[in-house]
Amino acid sequence: MAKYRIALDAMGGDNAPVAIVEGAKLAVEEFPDITVQLYGPEDALRPLIEGSERIEIVHAPEVIGMHDSPMLAVRQKTESSLVKAVLAVREGAADAVVSAGSTGALLAGGMLRIGRIRGIERPALAPVIPGRKKPFLLIDCGANVDCQPRYLQQFGLMGSVYMQSVQGVPRPEVGLANIGTEAEKGDKLTREAYALMSAQSAYIFKGNAEVRDVPAGDFDVVVADGFVGNVILKSIEGVSSLIMGMLKDSLRSSRRARAGALMMRPALRGLKNKMDYKSHGGAPLLGVNGAVVKAHGSSDARAIKNAVRQARSMLEGKVVEKIRDGLDGLSAKE
Amino acid sequence: MAKYRIALDAMGGDNAPVAIVEGAKLAVEEFPDITVQLYGPEDALRPLIEGSERIEIVHAPEVIGMHDSPMLAVRQKTESSLVKAVLAVREGAADAVVSAGSTGALLAGGMLRIGRIRGIERPALAPVIPGRKKPFLLIDCGANVDCQPRYLQQFGLMGSVYMQSVQGVPRPEVGLANIGTEAEKGDKLTREAYALMSAQSAYIFKGNAEVRDVPAGDFDVVVADGFVGNVILKSIEGVSSLIMGMLKDSLRSSRRARAGALMMRPALRGLKNKMDYKSHGGAPLLGVNGAVVKAHGSSDARAIKNAVRQARSMLEGKVVEKIRDGLDGLSAKE
Repeated sequence: MAKYRIALDAMGGDNAPVAIVEGAKLAVEEFPDITVQLYGPEDALRPLIEGSERIEIVHAPEVIGMHDSPMLAVRQKTESSLVKAVLAVREGAADAVVSAGSTGALLAGGMLRIGRIRGIERPALAPVIPGRKKPFLLIDCGANVDCQPRYLQQFGLMGSVYMQSVQGVPRPEVGLANIGTEAEKGDKLTREAYALMSAQSAYIFKGNAEVRDVPAGDFDVVVADGFVGNVILKSIEGVSSLIMGMLKDSLRSSRRARAGALMMRPALRGLKNKMDYKSHGGAPLLGVNGAVVKAHGSSDARAIKNAVRQARSMLEGKVVEKIRDGLDGLSAKE
Repeated sequence: MAKYRIALDAMGGDNAPVAIVEGAKLAVEEFPDITVQLYGPEDALRPLIEGSERIEIVHAPEVIGMHDSPMLAVRQKTESSLVKAVLAVREGAADAVVSAGSTGALLAGGMLRIGRIRGIERPALAPVIPGRKKPFLLIDCGANVDCQPRYLQQFGLMGSVYMQSVQGVPRPEVGLANIGTEAEKGDKLTREAYALMSAQSAYIFKGNAEVRDVPAGDFDVVVADGFVGNVILKSIEGVSSLIMGMLKDSLRSSRRARAGALMMRPALRGLKNKMDYKSHGGAPLLGVNGAVVKAHGSSDARAIKNAVRQARSMLEGKVVEKIRDGLDGLSAKE
């Protein structure tokens, strides 16, 4: 019998349901110890999975769109693929849930339906982002604005556990996103969070992570208020696509440059892949009482497979249990 | 007689005093209507300006270093080049001040010694940043953390006046940096600032500027709390240098790519210049009762000349007067 049961929202994302179903097939092929439950309209999904083993369909006729209010959708669209997939984890019918649908609805569903780990006040969204030296986890990326300092202290624990258990970093180094490196830098929130993070023994706090240096990858985990984390994430996305666009314009600016670009194509493609944070799978929602992964809205089959792998790694790495175990260390320095 | 007297901190910045003095020479050459006052040790500066017209030296034996506490330095190092240059504006001996030295000390000096425009609660640092379509002013970039909503409303006015009077944008469009475009998006600060900015008639408020789209250049002015603005600025810097570094690595990765890169060199150099926000001069400190420009610490002579030009344009554009005139429009929608 399969060890892990992954609930997959078959109707979430730009390429649903085909890419989601194809991703499920790739995932069961790669991981013999999982089953995938596809949530969506039975008649739409059935023809897509013919002959596949370890993939089952759970009928869910409703779909949550990108324009639905997340809170309302979770409360009212109880027959939607996203809500039913989330509820499966709550009810013990599945071990983890993956969706490429509405981020807000998945957050709301995770928090309201699965619930928080006792002792964690705010679950947080935490994508792994490619840095120059190594990838880093940015937590929180938008689940919570107007954070309290102790939320940030808890984010550090959740991020550290994830990077250790799922990404295999032996001793993750945690930094606090800030506008300077000295302890007294920042606004009220970061100064108070700095003090709390310095006074705990649950993870390795390495001080302030100056935002300019964050993309270099000096830290394994970068902690921020959800507003600030979202600003960092979107600045990275915005500048990356700006530079890529300008680069393309430059390359087309002369015949000579075009010829050069043609010769450089493999190198440039490598660069593009390195910058493409989507290929790193989805973002875990950490702090809820289960494994929840938000796949990118534009996920293709490979990205969905990676997100399923990530959910499986969270189960195998016992992320929820380890976050729970680490909570004691937050209140006291060893 | 020269129309504008610019006080220049000759000892501030990585390349002081030589690059500063050379910049002063370029500036007086380009602008016949200015004089430059060089603040610094007489004996160090005298040999550098021999034969120059419209450049005078004002002796200032002390230097404020990058490791001095800004507040203490402004209070105690009263014989420093930076403090004396700032005081010259306060006392009417100069019309504007430019420094490539400590940002913190220049901010503290500007606020404490020159003082605020009556009605402006927090002066703000506001560099012009290259965007894909057009450059934009990012205000505030770090002078104020923990802002109140009405500070942000005032930043909009100051930024709009600057872009109109100095950069020649006829009807500057002001956006509020946020993590989504809808009015209800963001944290407490941005939601309240959104309401205040919507309810005024001093400038054109175009709503939330989603951070991902900021580098595209859809807005002329982007308003943010100093912490968030600094995060945006440093993310842009960090990602730009990351991508440039990765690009360099890629180009060197194979003989074929190297050959291609050689052919593309002119196009790539154009791209680099476009991304180099330093060449756009310094950042004005808006909201103080005078023209104050912070030049980049690594400024060369050309950058210093550009910063002096900027100070001159602020005087010619009557930025202080226009900010004062605009204040009435903040409290009422026409």
